Amino acid sequence: MSTSAYDPNNIFARILRGELPAEKVFETDKILAFMDIMPRADGHVLVIPKTPARNILDIQPDDLAELAKGAQMVAKAVKVGMAADGLTIQQFNESSGGQVVFHIHVHVLPRWEGVALRPPGTMAKPDVLAEHAGRIRAAFAGG
Amino acid sequence: MSTSAYDPNNIFARILRGELPAEKVFETDKILAFMDIMPRADGHVLVIPKTPARNILDIQPDDLAELAKGAQMVAKAVKVGMAADGLTIQQFNESSGGQVVFHIHVHVLPRWEGVALRPPGTMAKPDVLAEHAGRIRAAFAGG
Repeated sequence: MSTSAYDPNNIFARILRGELPAEKVFETDKILAFMDIMPRADGHVLVIPKTPARNILDIQPDDLAELAKGAQMVAKAVKVGMAADGLTIQQFNESSGGQVVFHIHVHVLPRWEGVALRPPGTMAKPDVLAEHAGRIRAAFAGG
Repeated sequence: MSTSAYDPNNIFARILRGELPAEKVFETDKILAFMDIMPRADGHVLVIPKTPARNILDIQPDDLAELAKGAQMVAKAVKVGMAADGLTIQQFNESSGGQVVFHIHVHVLPRWEGVALRPPGTMAKPDVLAEHAGRIRAAFAGG
């Protein structure tokens, strides 16, 4: 169903293989969650499955179910860790749908009353990402 | 975890009980999919679980998994029925996260190269919704 084959050298596949760094916040045998380096909100996390899939059109339904459950766990921890009022969840498929990296990923965006999302495309400073990641990891740890 | 209790009189609960009409496109024992009456793209579909849940903060993980699997089936049918290039999936939690109706729902938005989403808030004509629903139902039927 996908318009193109899965590219095993996409940057998220390389993060999964440990070839590229990421500020990780949560991991299971099924999914990995890490900070988006171009956050549209403080505490913007990406959740990806460990199995290769381009997007919603080709992922196996059971893998999508695990991805959704992982995104829920991340959403709860992000809300606590970032003291958010709510959350916006986004998932983009193909370029026209907003997809840039072709390994399926779920955006978990903490939201606060009166605070708009930032425009896409601005890199965060590593120390800022690390500080937000620490807050989210602490929420996972029950802190 | 939710900031408020589930309100059984929200409009999606009323659609599930048959108290309000909806232009339905797909239904299982777990989920219902119907046309958004204020579509941000032609063929904009909402997918909801039949079990009561306010949003991602309180839905049972297994119900969320079924919702995700249902959204995937809908996404594939919407892409075919609407001849879309891609899809944007959105899910909003609490007012700050963009949520307006407090029964969890997934937005499935077909996308085409060069076509932006419309601003929110404009009602579609019923005959237009019905025509788009017919195309999506035909895709489910393999047509």
